[in-house]
Order: sequence, then C-alpha cells, then structure tokens
Amino acid sequence: MVQIRIDRSSTVPVYLQIDRELRALIASGELPQGAMLPPERQLATSLGVNRTTILNAYRELKADGLVESRVGSGTRVSGGVTASPGPVGPLPWSQLVRPSGEEAPDPLVRDLLELTERADVISFAVGLPAPDLLPLDLVGRLHAAMMREAGPAALLHSPTEGLTQFRETLCGLMAGRGVSCAVPEVLVTSGSQQGLDLLARVLLDPGDEVVVEEPSYFGALQVFRRAGARLLGVPTDRDGMRTDVLESVLARRRPKLIYTLPTFQNPSGAVLAGGRRRQLLDLAYRFQVPVVEDDPYSELRYEGNALPPLKALDDHGHVIYASSFSKVLFPGLRVGWLVAPPALVRRLALVKQSVDLHTTTPGQWLIHHFIRDGHFQRHVAAARQAYRIRRDAMDEALRAAAPPALEWARPEGGFYFWCRLPASVAQGRLFALAAAEGVAYLPGEACFAGGAAAGFMRLNFTYPTCDQIRVGVAALAAALRTAVRARADGGAERGGTPPIV
Amino acid sequence: MVQIRIDRSSTVPVYLQIDRELRALIASGELPQGAMLPPERQLATSLGVNRTTILNAYRELKADGLVESRVGSGTRVSGGVTASPGPVGPLPWSQLVRPSGEEAPDPLVRDLLELTERADVISFAVGLPAPDLLPLDLVGRLHAAMMREAGPAALLHSPTEGLTQFRETLCGLMAGRGVSCAVPEVLVTSGSQQGLDLLARVLLDPGDEVVVEEPSYFGALQVFRRAGARLLGVPTDRDGMRTDVLESVLARRRPKLIYTLPTFQNPSGAVLAGGRRRQLLDLAYRFQVPVVEDDPYSELRYEGNALPPLKALDDHGHVIYASSFSKVLFPGLRVGWLVAPPALVRRLALVKQSVDLHTTTPGQWLIHHFIRDGHFQRHVAAARQAYRIRRDAMDEALRAAAPPALEWARPEGGFYFWCRLPASVAQGRLFALAAAEGVAYLPGEACFAGGAAAGFMRLNFTYPTCDQIRVGVAALAAALRTAVRARADGGAERGGTPPIV
Repeated sequence: MVQIRIDRSSTVPVYLQIDRELRALIASGELPQGAMLPPERQLATSLGVNRTTILNAYRELKADGLVESRVGSGTRVSGGVTASPGPVGPLPWSQLVRPSGEEAPDPLVRDLLELTERADVISFAVGLPAPDLLPLDLVGRLHAAMMREAGPAALLHSPTEGLTQFRETLCGLMAGRGVSCAVPEVLVTSGSQQGLDLLARVLLDPGDEVVVEEPSYFGALQVFRRAGARLLGVPTDRDGMRTDVLESVLARRRPKLIYTLPTFQNPSGAVLAGGRRRQLLDLAYRFQVPVVEDDPYSELRYEGNALPPLKALDDHGHVIYASSFSKVLFPGLRVGWLVAPPALVRRLALVKQSVDLHTTTPGQWLIHHFIRDGHFQRHVAAARQAYRIRRDAMDEALRAAAPPALEWARPEGGFYFWCRLPASVAQGRLFALAAAEGVAYLPGEACFAGGAAAGFMRLNFTYPTCDQIRVGVAALAAALRTAVRARADGGAERGGTPPIV
Repeated sequence: MVQIRIDRSSTVPVYLQIDRELRALIASGELPQGAMLPPERQLATSLGVNRTTILNAYRELKADGLVESRVGSGTRVSGGVTASPGPVGPLPWSQLVRPSGEEAPDPLVRDLLELTERADVISFAVGLPAPDLLPLDLVGRLHAAMMREAGPAALLHSPTEGLTQFRETLCGLMAGRGVSCAVPEVLVTSGSQQGLDLLARVLLDPGDEVVVEEPSYFGALQVFRRAGARLLGVPTDRDGMRTDVLESVLARRRPKLIYTLPTFQNPSGAVLAGGRRRQLLDLAYRFQVPVVEDDPYSELRYEGNALPPLKALDDHGHVIYASSFSKVLFPGLRVGWLVAPPALVRRLALVKQSVDLHTTTPGQWLIHHFIRDGHFQRHVAAARQAYRIRRDAMDEALRAAAPPALEWARPEGGFYFWCRLPASVAQGRLFALAAAEGVAYLPGEACFAGGAAAGFMRLNFTYPTCDQIRVGVAALAAALRTAVRARADGGAERGGTPPIV
C-alpha cells in the first residue's frame, strides 16, 4: 500500500495534495510503470476523505498521462508522459489564471477612467481634483530645485518604507491632524490604494471577514474581495456608520478588520459623528478588532468644524490610518501613506519590498518639498475655496433642474453628492440615457458590499468646472425625466420584446 | 442534529469552516443559549473528518466565549460573548498577520539598501546603475518640456495599462530587440518587480510549482515564495540554464511557470546559448508551460554579439517578457513593463487596478520623452562604454589582488561578477570581515532556491567608480585572506569557545 500524507491544515486542496504525493511516488519510481494505484474507494477510506477527492486526484494524473485507467481493471501508472505531445498551439490563458477571488473582474474603474478621457463627456463619475487648480509652474520649479538639491539620489532607489525626510514631514502633517506619531510608524505607499492592498495581503486570509460601511469605497471593496474576504456590510446614515448595528455584528461574527471612511465618506459624504467615533473605538477595543481608517478627504471641509480622526482618539493602537495625496494634490504621482504600529509597518514593508521595492523616489521628494516649503497648506486652502464654490454650484443646479423625486443632501466636505434615485428608475437605462446626453456618473451599485442596493448615483463636483456642473446637471435631469417617463409609459424601455406572462 | 456543510475543495481549512457554520447557527439562534453541541467524536464521524479537526473548531468557539465545556458534561452554547471583555491592551499584531508564505521575512534587500547608503562603505552589493552617469540636466529639461506639453495630464491619473503613447514607444523599443508586438500586449508596471508580483498573483496558487535557475534573481524567488509556490531549481552553467535538466524536471513535475533570465543572468552573468534558447522554447511548447523571460540587462553588452530574446523566437505565445528601466536609466522612478498575450494583459491590468491604480504618470511621461527624443540609445551607448571600463577594472583588480582560490569569469555584459569562494571560507565570517574592511557584497546564498549552495559572492561593478573598485577589491581580498588563514589556523574564528567533542 502506498504511503500518502495529507495535511488538513494546509490551504492546498486535499485532492491536489494526493495528486502531488502520487506524482512524487511515480517520479521516484516507487510506483513504477504499470503499477496499480489503490482502488479509489479503498484509498478514500484509508485517508478519511470523500471518494470524489480521490477521483479528482486521479483525474489530474490522467490528464497529464501519468496514469491510465480502464473500466473494470483499475488505474495503472502509464508508460511515459512525453509520448503524444500533440500539436503546439497558443496557451489557454483563461485556464492558466487563478480561479479565485481574483476571478471577479470589475472593469468599472478602468471604464470610467476611459470615459473621463473623452473630451465630449462631462464627467461627474471619478474622484479627481480640479485639473485647473494644479500648480504646474510650482511643480516645475520644485522639480528643478529637487534635482539641484538631491542630485542623483532623486532618481535612485529609496528605502522601502519611504524617504526618511519625507516620513518626518508626514509626521508633521499628522500632528496637524491631531495625531502624534514617529517615523517608524509611517509607511509611504504607492497611493493609498496600495496601502489597502498591502494590509489585505498581510492581514487577510481567504474566508476572513471584513466590516465595511454600506455604501463604501469601490476600490477598497475590490481589494478585500480579491483577498478572498467576506464583506460584512454595516449601514450608514447622515452620521456615518451605524455603531449600534456594528455592535450586533461584532457580537455574532469575528471580522479581521473594520474598514471605515469616517470623514466625508466616499461615496455618501457622511461624517461619523463625534459620539460614534468613541463608540466605534470602544467596540474595536472590546472585540479586539483592528480599525482601518481611510482618510483622503478630511482636509477638504467647506463648512462646520473639524472632528479628530479616529487615529487621534485611539489610546490603544487599534487604528491603522491610511491617506493619500491624490485628492488634495497630484493623483498621477501615486504617493500615499499609512500610520500603523511599528511592528505592523515592518511587516508591511517586507511585503512592499517584493511588490514594488519602494514608491517612486522623485514623487516622494516632490511632495516632501511641497509640504516643507509651505505650499501644501496654501494649496489646500485654495482647493477648499474652489471646491466650496463648485459644491454650491452643483447644489443649486440640482435644485434648479429639480429632477423628479431625486433626493440628496449637500455634503459638508469631500468630493461627492450622493443622490437617491426615484424607485421607478432603472439604473442601466438612466446611465445609458445620461451618456447619450454627454454626462457620466458613478452608479451606486458599485459601492455596496451586498450589491443589493440599487437606486443611487454618486456625483463628483471637484473635477468639472462650474459651467460643466450646470450643463451636466441639466443634462442629467433631462435623462432622469426621460427615464421616469419611460417607466411611467409602461414597458417602453423593454424595446418591443413582448413580456413573458 | 445540527446541519453543517463543509467544502473540501475550499482553501479555508475544514476546522474553520466548521467553526463558521457553528458560529452562524449560534448567531441565528438555531443553537440557543445552553444548547449542547454534538459530541466531538460523533460530529467527526458524521462529517468524515478527524476528531482533531472538531477539537480545533470547538477551541476557536471557546476562545471567543461562544461555547463552554466541562469534563464529562460536553460542550454548550454559553450565555453571551460580551460578558467579560477584559482590560484593553495593544493588539497582538504578530498573531494578526497571516501565517503563510508571507511569513518568511528576508530583510536582505532592505539591509543592503541601507548599507549602500553608508558613505564609508564601498558597495559591490546592489544592482544599481552608476550615479555619475545619470543625465540630471537632461531630466530637468525633459521635465520642464513635459509640463509644458502635457500640462495637468502629467500629474493626473493615467490608464491602468499605462499611457497609450508610452506603450507605443515601448513597442518601438521591443522592435529594436527583435520582438514585434502591439499596444494591447504591453502592460506598464511599477518596476519589473511589480510585473513579477502581478504574474504571481494572477497565475500562482499556493502549492504551485515554478521552475527557476540555480542561482536566480533574489527578488523573484521572494515573489514566488510569497505566493506560496514551490521552487524547482534547475542548475546553470556558463551557457545558462541546463535544458537537459529542465527536460527531466518537466517530465516529472507540472510547474505553472518557467522563470529565466537568459541574458547576463542575475547573479551568474551567464548567457543562455542560442541552441538552448530553442530547446527551452521547444520544452515549453511540448509541456505547455509559460515562460517568464526577465530581461533587464540585455542592452548592456560589452563584447560579442547579441542573441535574440526568447520572446523574439517564440512562435506560439508562450513567453511573457518582463523588463525595466531600472538598470539602464532611473531605478527610483519605478517604471518597467511586460509584453504578454492580450488576454493575460487584460487580466493583469484588472489586478494592477486594485493594487496601485496605475504606475506614476510623470515617470511614464519622462521615460516616454527620453526615448522619443532619441536620448535612450545615446544613454545606453554611454553606459555600455563606462561599464565596460568598470568591468575590466574589476577583472584586473581581482587578478592583481589574486585572492587565494577565488574563481570567477569575466562577464560579457550586465552588472555582476559571480565568484566562487574557496571551500574553506565561511560566508558569515567573510561578510563580517569585508564589512570591517569597508566593503559590501551580496552573499550567494540569497540567490539559491534550494538554499544549499554556499560559497559564492556577487560583485556589482556598475555602481562603484573605478577607484572604488580597485580599493574595494583589495579590501575584499584582504578579508578573504584573513578568512582563509583563520580557517587554516583551525578554530581561531571560534573565538575561544572550546569545541564540543
């Protein structure tokens, strides 16, 4: 009887473990050409697995010509594997790629980026800063200064954790947000998107659970899904995540992370209320769950008073803080950062090293100089002023166009209006009508972990100009009226196909 | 009896599946407070799993206070989970991070980067271009031109696959290397390191096998290991990978990838001979295994004639080509590229989107302009000339210093001398002696998949100047002589501790 060891704690499926063990026995000659493999049922019993598992293992071996079986005579080790290679063709890539969480392709972001590049479309779809606000001349001057000051170092490798001077500068920036931290707690990332991805790679195993807000940031949901995580959605209202619901979720499940955008949430614009900030932290402490605080928008407040980030309130090191320069400065540079306990930063850096070695050196230098020389606060102040005007323009345009039964609230800060559509409007239909009118938005479905909640759209007001906002909102309202009318007409949008009754 | 489903094809360990099923039954009230859980042995039998698996599942539930058990009276659902939260302390991050391929931390690259930053150390350790060759003024002028030409677009998002103009430019570069490809086959990556990481994420499942050369590029081994792959080492000689050994490996195993650096291999400097290039492709076709060709050095040939890359010889789309600007231009920018079948590029781009959205936009523009304006070929020609001189300087210095029993061959191109140490020299001892003499090198162990082969060192000759090469090699030879003498003296290096006999 052949000796086969299986490891039930392994992430390798049992049938593949058996397949590999048998392969090794064949390769080593322990199972020579012509030798009988154990009958499937017998091997299943002796290993304590399903017969299907054995069938699957044998099928793998057969597919490679290592064994052959005939009905009634069992399975034998075959003569050789190179006998009939067959004609050479292109590789079947769709079979070669991993069948896993990576499977679900959601090309939404890519498509929206492409749509945004079309000059004839007014885009409310993507979360970009205003191109006309970018300080191009200043960037040119800073680049020249950097080349003089840093010399070759500006173009050579930098440490995986980030340039030390830049990490110091980031500590200063964090101090302005009420967070006291030191260099070993800061990891520079290639955009905050990479920060989320690194966290998923270090903290999440397939099947782990992650608490997310409903709705939440599309790109974060994508990262967690890709890591094989199960998303536990907690609803939000005007005061952010419903901490009462969070408590009942934590009492029943054991998530690995709580992911939250407490300030000017993407997409809802909600701000987690002060009391709820404390409650969320208390729950994190009680249930010992780390919190990932994603905070790309908090500098962009157009009214009201700032609330401290969760990280500033965290006395027990449970909060991992992620942020980015993509919303307030230059999204194209891909520079963001994390603040986390040093032990976790060391671990994340080891992964980052094999992921991209380090974040772009000149990009770090540039933003370092930008902040160090005092341009950052001036730039943020200017952006705040410009974006407040655009926000008000969108609010007014929405009220002037008065699309039927559309609900929205003017956000206090951030990048987005989050609008609830009339129940009668089909999202797909509206999106097509809007595109035909020359305007793009983000359909709300992309932002839900459950995927159930239709009937929302996210409108960005920072990327378009005030004129574009007025024209685009009017076009969107026209599309919305057509969509409502089509539905009221009853079935007109079905395009002539008779209903199945 | 409770209903528990387990999925043996899942990557989630069975005990965790059982744990989760029971958790759901408790949460839903199907197993109310005080209810008995099935006896462990009985549940094990009914599910066809080991009793240990059930014990592990129950232990998880107990750890969270969801169930409690007393000897002789079985396991019951306990009253509540929030009864005794205990005092709040910092999170145990070492327990929270994934126990997987990510575990093995190899801080070698980071340490070497840090060592290289020390002004008092002559570094032969890292694979960097010469800082004194970097065209700083030109980069400054190109940056200014880019800001004028591209405007805000230079600082905004770009497509995940890369800027279209830049991808066209890369097609032109590939044509110069004998490869005919089109834009949909090109993916811009954040350094070729990211290209390897994306390939691993898309193609490798834990337990998959990857063929690598012995020795091979440290960072690639790191990526494959982190993906949970098993490395199948194939030895190399002066003509590159031993294709006869590769054939016998492919006949016995079923690797997902063959990873090779055919031209000026890192670290050995070997060039895969023309005949072997054909043989390697024939084997890839016969066994239907994709080949990853890592080619960062081929432009840097100092003598002899160029051989076509595998990608240029590949008639059946089996070769994925990876390259980088880090060796010939600016490592700090983090810009590399892949050439692969369009179906695979689409898949890789979907993953890249959630990994870092896209590669730095200004970095892509800068290199695009650099190539488009004809600077690239001029720069490569200058680098070739400078590096040939440095290579010869290192060869002469090694011969002049004549370290005892050191073996090396002068490489035809690339970045490295690969030296075999005398059998009597302990690597750790030599590295410490060399550091004390003010010189750093890469110990060969890092480059082996098996980890067995000690007794090599990799010396880079492009980063140091000719003077540093002469001084550094003399220092290294002195360290080597001391190491050999210490060994000859018998136990002197043990520092007085009496041997255990």
